[in-house]
Amino acid sequence: MNYELNEDQIAFQETARKFAETSMAPHAARWDAEHIFPTELFVEAGALGFMSLYVPEEDGGIGLCRLDSTLVIEELATGCTSTAAYISIHNMALNMLARYGSAALKAYWCEALASGQRLASYCLTEPGSGSDAASLSTRADRDGDQYIINGSKCFISGAGDTDLLITMVRTGEPGPRGITCVAIPADTAGIHYGKAEEKMGWNSQPTRTVTFENVKVPVENRLAEEGQGFKLAMEALDGGRINIAACSVGAARASVELSSAYVQERKQFDRPVADFQNTQFKLADMATQLVASRQMIRLAAAKLDQGSPDRASFCAMAKRFATDTCFSICDEAIQLHGGYGYIREYPIERYFRDTRVHRILEGTNEIMRLVIARQLLSERRGTLIE
Amino acid sequence: MNYELNEDQIAFQETARKFAETSMAPHAARWDAEHIFPTELFVEAGALGFMSLYVPEEDGGIGLCRLDSTLVIEELATGCTSTAAYISIHNMALNMLARYGSAALKAYWCEALASGQRLASYCLTEPGSGSDAASLSTRADRDGDQYIINGSKCFISGAGDTDLLITMVRTGEPGPRGITCVAIPADTAGIHYGKAEEKMGWNSQPTRTVTFENVKVPVENRLAEEGQGFKLAMEALDGGRINIAACSVGAARASVELSSAYVQERKQFDRPVADFQNTQFKLADMATQLVASRQMIRLAAAKLDQGSPDRASFCAMAKRFATDTCFSICDEAIQLHGGYGYIREYPIERYFRDTRVHRILEGTNEIMRLVIARQLLSERRGTLIE
Amino acid sequence: MNYELNEDQIAFQETARKFAETSMAPHAARWDAEHIFPTELFVEAGALGFMSLYVPEEDGGIGLCRLDSTLVIEELATGCTSTAAYISIHNMALNMLARYGSAALKAYWCEALASGQRLASYCLTEPGSGSDAASLSTRADRDGDQYIINGSKCFISGAGDTDLLITMVRTGEPGPRGITCVAIPADTAGIHYGKAEEKMGWNSQPTRTVTFENVKVPVENRLAEEGQGFKLAMEALDGGRINIAACSVGAARASVELSSAYVQERKQFDRPVADFQNTQFKLADMATQLVASRQMIRLAAAKLDQGSPDRASFCAMAKRFATDTCFSICDEAIQLHGGYGYIREYPIERYFRDTRVHRILEGTNEIMRLVIARQLLSERRGTLIE
Amino acid sequence: MNYELNEDQIAFQETARKFAETSMAPHAARWDAEHIFPTELFVEAGALGFMSLYVPEEDGGIGLCRLDSTLVIEELATGCTSTAAYISIHNMALNMLARYGSAALKAYWCEALASGQRLASYCLTEPGSGSDAASLSTRADRDGDQYIINGSKCFISGAGDTDLLITMVRTGEPGPRGITCVAIPADTAGIHYGKAEEKMGWNSQPTRTVTFENVKVPVENRLAEEGQGFKLAMEALDGGRINIAACSVGAARASVELSSAYVQERKQFDRPVADFQNTQFKLADMATQLVASRQMIRLAAAKLDQGSPDRASFCAMAKRFATDTCFSICDEAIQLHGGYGYIREYPIERYFRDTRVHRILEGTNEIMRLVIARQLLSERRGTLIE
Repeated sequence: MNYELNEDQIAFQETARKFAETSMAPHAARWDAEHIFPTELFVEAGALGFMSLYVPEEDGGIGLCRLDSTLVIEELATGCTSTAAYISIHNMALNMLARYGSAALKAYWCEALASGQRLASYCLTEPGSGSDAASLSTRADRDGDQYIINGSKCFISGAGDTDLLITMVRTGEPGPRGITCVAIPADTAGIHYGKAEEKMGWNSQPTRTVTFENVKVPVENRLAEEGQGFKLAMEALDGGRINIAACSVGAARASVELSSAYVQERKQFDRPVADFQNTQFKLADMATQLVASRQMIRLAAAKLDQGSPDRASFCAMAKRFATDTCFSICDEAIQLHGGYGYIREYPIERYFRDTRVHRILEGTNEIMRLVIARQLLSERRGTLIE
Repeated sequence: MNYELNEDQIAFQETARKFAETSMAPHAARWDAEHIFPTELFVEAGALGFMSLYVPEEDGGIGLCRLDSTLVIEELATGCTSTAAYISIHNMALNMLARYGSAALKAYWCEALASGQRLASYCLTEPGSGSDAASLSTRADRDGDQYIINGSKCFISGAGDTDLLITMVRTGEPGPRGITCVAIPADTAGIHYGKAEEKMGWNSQPTRTVTFENVKVPVENRLAEEGQGFKLAMEALDGGRINIAACSVGAARASVELSSAYVQERKQFDRPVADFQNTQFKLADMATQLVASRQMIRLAAAKLDQGSPDRASFCAMAKRFATDTCFSICDEAIQLHGGYGYIREYPIERYFRDTRVHRILEGTNEIMRLVIARQLLSERRGTLIE
Repeated sequence: MNYELNEDQIAFQETARKFAETSMAPHAARWDAEHIFPTELFVEAGALGFMSLYVPEEDGGIGLCRLDSTLVIEELATGCTSTAAYISIHNMALNMLARYGSAALKAYWCEALASGQRLASYCLTEPGSGSDAASLSTRADRDGDQYIINGSKCFISGAGDTDLLITMVRTGEPGPRGITCVAIPADTAGIHYGKAEEKMGWNSQPTRTVTFENVKVPVENRLAEEGQGFKLAMEALDGGRINIAACSVGAARASVELSSAYVQERKQFDRPVADFQNTQFKLADMATQLVASRQMIRLAAAKLDQGSPDRASFCAMAKRFATDTCFSICDEAIQLHGGYGYIREYPIERYFRDTRVHRILEGTNEIMRLVIARQLLSERRGTLIE
Repeated sequence: MNYELNEDQIAFQETARKFAETSMAPHAARWDAEHIFPTELFVEAGALGFMSLYVPEEDGGIGLCRLDSTLVIEELATGCTSTAAYISIHNMALNMLARYGSAALKAYWCEALASGQRLASYCLTEPGSGSDAASLSTRADRDGDQYIINGSKCFISGAGDTDLLITMVRTGEPGPRGITCVAIPADTAGIHYGKAEEKMGWNSQPTRTVTFENVKVPVENRLAEEGQGFKLAMEALDGGRINIAACSVGAARASVELSSAYVQERKQFDRPVADFQNTQFKLADMATQLVASRQMIRLAAAKLDQGSPDRASFCAMAKRFATDTCFSICDEAIQLHGGYGYIREYPIERYFRDTRVHRILEGTNEIMRLVIARQLLSERRGTLIE
């Protein structure tokens, strides 16, 4: 075992940290307040490889392993958690294309997506199917060389401002085996976008409903085979979960850093607030939980990189633990800031609002517990807890 | 002992409930989104007595006891937590005036304030003195029949849109004994208002910095004697704390009600979400915590009504417990709503944002613990815990 | 509403407090260490009415209401939690007899039980039916004027050292409606007692398995009608639950008192431990949780006294909340005592061990959540949370 | 980074697991009940190298790194947590001797201690100095080639049944710099042992007060120089803390394993308890917390092995997190077992009692927070949280 970053990892981390500090943090408050989807930033991020972190180099990516990718994502999230989260979703969608798209499809899309010039959305959730994703009802009916798609997706990150929709549709029987994954150009005729949802946070990325009305897509836009879509979607989410978790860690780390500094500056009762034992104990617990969250993510990422049969459970553990724990850290950071923690002049309350949704999406933390419990109650329990 | 509401109490409660449902709830989302301070509502509330709940009848109030007042405030908070919280602050400020103002001052202000035609702010906190309120530095220098006031207050609810500022100023020695309370008309020359703070919630009431630059106020605007101001301010906060706590209970109750209904409508895996054991256990705990929070408030209110020597400790307990606990309830309500809990189309996330600040203001929950511990480590421990 | 104790209540409380201090506390460590069931104490307690608190006076009891009874039980539990818990079980069993027994049966047993000269056990749980009590399988077959009883009960408090077994048996169909309650003299032929269980705590009361092998009991020993047994058992548990909860409050209160005193005596770093902010904050939270727990119990007791249709839910809330919360208080008390909290020379670790089981018995806290949720998801939600 | 065990590590782990299953687990209940210090087991453990895990091979140890040592200790703790904890203390004491003892002293003691034929105790705590260890008052006065030692140590694991006392004494100025470490043969004239403390758990190791009355020890029994004792003691505790934390992980892992199996066997409401969602969610959280605890320990151990300047903070984090978290896991395991969790027939309640003290000793978890906070508020913050 080895818990040290190597030189390459330190280099990725530093590049990302500088980018977060320089290109993201100074604008994050405005993106939040004005609901700006920073498309120019994505081009800049693309130039550094951040839009295609774990996409193979032959597909235009920079081919990092999952563990190394989480280092980058954590850093980006310190700058703007919401934007980093969108970047992680774009990475996930692009990687599905790179892994499972036809040569022609990849030739057309991969480089543009890897560069951040074009952007992707991941379309799974429907109004009637959230946690029970396998019950989705958007249909794709085969008509010669085309699919004709009808139905509706909701809570789609980036929708309305992205270029490609990696979409799970039903081509066959009910349940997971009847689901297929199709890459749908976002400007195809028959696609309608709802109004941008008003959300508590995640304001630098639009979230919209997407409705498909007799949308025609060539069959060659399919990723993998018919009936493979649910498997692809879930596989993608394993990685998506640790990335979202890394976004929570980034937000929490920034909150700990800012709080540690704030309590040393802020005086009450003629002493820095940092002198009070409650302050010290809170900070100590925040830091400890932060470190534990990060370790869970790296462990899960390593399992993913090895293709361990337990990877889904470890990713679920990491996502559940880190998103709950890091949200609590952000909440405590508000408390340490007193009234200043509640106003937008300080970034703390934004980290808090942005991380709240991480406990819900990419599989709610309740679904994570089901995933973990399933293995724990099986014969494969040992490899999870020993 | 008796835990039942009597007929009068049920009547107050029902009036308030109807008002909350009819006049507040339908507008709360808009007030939040557009940062509207609903001044017309306050007139309507004033007509029902809600702007002067525990103000004596001879001063234009409706003379409820503190316990009965919390019944009303809880109901108002189900409609719009932020607005109910401002109403509770207005009540607190008006009551200080009614109890300690000169006859002339009261004659001029009380009726207008009780009617909601005019509004009051409570001005204690300063940029450099939050939890350590007794260190405040806004000065009032005596000049004949006038005070000349210089200094700055921050985080003042309603400031810029209210008519009277109940303000704690320093007239004497450092520390609590040098503080005096003065009622300052909000339009007096030399008062400058900062821009409205951008906050996470509490958006239906403006929060501003108030700067006093050689502001002249007649000495007869003083409440009680010189040097009594800190005592007045803290006494007012005892009641203020249980009212804020009641606002948290109102928000949490609405969240439990909405969640209980939602999980019965929302289906996943072919069953209402209410059928899942985790849903049931969460709801059960939310309801239990809600009831416990309310009981703590009523117990403290009863102590206040009796003038018990322990009242400050019981108010601190109620505020600490109810604001922390009810925030957690709102947080769980988001989780039970899944993605819908995170968007503004549903009121859940607003309750969550609004109640977050209750853990900070009117004395942070950390200060509450100090208040409680002080008695617990004294000879008067027994009456607190037996 | 009224939150004050009246003179009578204060008198009961003081009598019980003195009894706990004088007759229980000095012996509790020995009863625990040597597993002594203090039968002589029960006679002393009986003389004060503590063995028949809410049993009607005409049946030899002292006829307190449920709320007043919890005052007494809390006090007893400060002296010895385990013994107070047995006393509460005896009260419950005796009250079933007094309410539902025939005149002859009552004439024979009530006075002896009320005096503490004879003792009762409550026999519901079986090896295969814990939380699912309605599935019990101990059979009672009618044979003329007798029942012939076969089967086995487990975790029976007092069994082997008590005189009367209030026992739930199956006389009819599967499920709750086939259950009947019978009072079985403990020395009836065919009753076998297992060895005393070795437990973590509750050592002053033996816990044994009771096996019935063709045990013959006159039909007149039945309480209420055939098929009423489950209803009787559950009704009894409503009260039993708040009593056990009151035992937790007693243990927690003693822990807070002892901790508050200890931290003022114990010095570290040249200061009393009480001077450290963490100590103060912990104590404040412990006291707050204690007061909240007690309020939940009194509210539930009042609902029980009124015969409120919501009483079962409120009793479940009180039991769940108080037993979980007060255990945590005892746990924190250990931490405040450092190493001294872990050794038997101090009573803290005994309170901790004794209260641990309160979260499990008289309906696990998981079952409490089901009871609460059932009402919360029904049309009767309102009266629970408003 | 690499999160996989190598072949050697797997081999150590398996040896230790088999030893725990075969030689420890079958006897643990009896050792607990009868307060047996299993001296024969230590010889068996010594033969496998477990009494000298990270002691250099030239000193008779098996020279594992700290990380590998924690693998072994976790396994031992699944068999008997209390005994594994003593073994970890013995290892700590022996290692101090091996690192800092004179050649003669080592020649005399190391092999016997490494073999488990002789046993060591670590003597730091005094009645008046627990958390404030640097204030210890046991004196060693120099008299020619000897120290004459007077004073008293308390809560000494193994005392009365061990052979060598690694003892911190004061030879100089007040505070940490006046402390020296001396190895004192346990049978030296003038040493008196108190009676074995009656504890909640940790019953397989005696805990006694040790009083020194003019005890004469050759100066050559000193470890390192005069005034170095506090440094030695604290350095030893860094490792001691992760070992105790590993003991908590072992107990928690066994609790998760047993609970997972139990809920699959135990039926209620005609279904295995494992089918209930609450059971699944609880188990999932327990497993997640277990994995997080272990990761924190391994990370800290790696920092210790590297001699990282942050090692003390990471060890404090691991100890704080793992001992609190794993105790909670044991507590939940009791709840999942219902009444069976409370009786000694099942090992669950023993794990619970044994791990409770880990939150207190080798530096309370409050002291851990101070250690962490100190770095967090220093310029070295970054390496702790980035």
